[in-house]
Amino acid sequence: MGIGDDCAVLEVPSGKQLAVSTDTLVEGVHFLPKSDAALLGHKALAVNLSDLASMGATPAWVSLAITMPRVDKAWLSSFSQGFFDLAKQYALHLIGGDTTRGPLSITVNIMGLLPKHHRLTRSGAQVGDHLCVSGNIGSAGLGLIKAKEGLSNIDDNDLQAFLRPTPRINLGKALLEMATSCIDISDGLSADLNHVLKASGVGAKVWNEKLPLAPSVHQHIEQIGDVFWPYSTGDDYELCFTLPKKMEVASLSHLTPFNISKIGVIEKEKGLRVATAHGEVKTLNKGYDHFNVE
Amino acid sequence: MGIGDDCAVLEVPSGKQLAVSTDTLVEGVHFLPKSDAALLGHKALAVNLSDLASMGATPAWVSLAITMPRVDKAWLSSFSQGFFDLAKQYALHLIGGDTTRGPLSITVNIMGLLPKHHRLTRSGAQVGDHLCVSGNIGSAGLGLIKAKEGLSNIDDNDLQAFLRPTPRINLGKALLEMATSCIDISDGLSADLNHVLKASGVGAKVWNEKLPLAPSVHQHIEQIGDVFWPYSTGDDYELCFTLPKKMEVASLSHLTPFNISKIGVIEKEKGLRVATAHGEVKTLNKGYDHFNVE
Repeated sequence: MGIGDDCAVLEVPSGKQLAVSTDTLVEGVHFLPKSDAALLGHKALAVNLSDLASMGATPAWVSLAITMPRVDKAWLSSFSQGFFDLAKQYALHLIGGDTTRGPLSITVNIMGLLPKHHRLTRSGAQVGDHLCVSGNIGSAGLGLIKAKEGLSNIDDNDLQAFLRPTPRINLGKALLEMATSCIDISDGLSADLNHVLKASGVGAKVWNEKLPLAPSVHQHIEQIGDVFWPYSTGDDYELCFTLPKKMEVASLSHLTPFNISKIGVIEKEKGLRVATAHGEVKTLNKGYDHFNVE
Repeated sequence: MGIGDDCAVLEVPSGKQLAVSTDTLVEGVHFLPKSDAALLGHKALAVNLSDLASMGATPAWVSLAITMPRVDKAWLSSFSQGFFDLAKQYALHLIGGDTTRGPLSITVNIMGLLPKHHRLTRSGAQVGDHLCVSGNIGSAGLGLIKAKEGLSNIDDNDLQAFLRPTPRINLGKALLEMATSCIDISDGLSADLNHVLKASGVGAKVWNEKLPLAPSVHQHIEQIGDVFWPYSTGDDYELCFTLPKKMEVASLSHLTPFNISKIGVIEKEKGLRVATAHGEVKTLNKGYDHFNVE
């Protein structure tokens, strides 16, 4: 229960380098108060796996530190089940665990392996590259709205996207040999894509009608009258990546059970421009602020 | 400010393995409310470095995640100074940083390097081994009492031991070639030494008069009338280790500017027995509970 108790020693195979990511999830900030423990266990690991996916890394080791007001064995058991069910799918080894008293938060440290001198970055997008995303955009954002409204039917696709995201590990690994840049969408497409554009020193045009949206998200957009809404919602954990223009985007379709969509193109002119079906072009540079979840 | 933003890629030199440790420090649990930010920055890193010291590892990389109620730039700047002043001493590279809103807590993930197939463990103590500790025991515990009483004179040695512990990195590296077991004292000598005895399948006798104590701790023990008090106080971050009986403990003295004391011997009979000058022998198996700091 103290500090200073968790150590692990790892052997990184020769020819590999290590990809590392640490994330802390705080109740009321990154997840709603009284969230289901098993779903939270899944999500805490999924968002970290998504970090590895964005680098093209293969998951290898994970450590888990939980801070909670009092030791609640039933909660911990349920949390662990969600966490380890997902960990098993990737043959992840737990190398450290720690429980501390305090306001509820979860810190996951994840490590994966990459071939030496090879990784996906945010900085390699080239003018003329295809701009692509995996899956659907905005579903998790709509799921958050539904969760706050009290919906708890986990069969709802949007709620599922929010509470139980699927990290795109296999896609990331496949993209390692193909993509010029990659990021996972955690803070919203606009914010995360802007990170890529900034790091690469380029801009992008997105054709709004190409944005892959679930029917429920289409409906929500109509209701609120804001076609740009899905660009600023977070928690999708899809990959946004660029491919050399000589590649055919359709050639990726056999790699995944979900859709891969070309949504735009990388341009020399800096900034992110979204063109709507009505000929309107809007520059987007804002993202999703986790501080506004409460 | 979100989750999923911090990634790093590390190259572990061939012939080396990686030592990893993650610790979360929570306000009111691991440090007192309204602690000085610079001292806290130092301590958050020091306790993690102490984990590496206990393995004999050489510090290499660190990531830092801070959760705080609101972004307080003055506090962050002060915290960073304490943290990075210590990091510089060990040529540590920061590979990730993250700030999240929530109740104040600090998570440090530290990584160090070890020669392949070689590390200090808790499980190698042998019957007949010398049982040793570095520095003084109980000073940090007395420092905590003084801090709670409102003392803020950082020149006070006990307060210094509590607020500004020095990780025993160089000693740990030297012990890698010598010690049969090692642990850092975070939860109290009794609790941590019992971890070693359990892992090694042995017991130990400690001669109480050999326990290295500062004069102020001697005085405190006389006041409270409990000679066993220093065995249960935490936060010393000294190393407790065992040496083969054929070694001379005195031969270590040139390695460190602080004292190395032989306090006892490893025995076949399980359990930790402390013999006092009055011929009393007491079995100790309890440690320091961080949950009682508040």
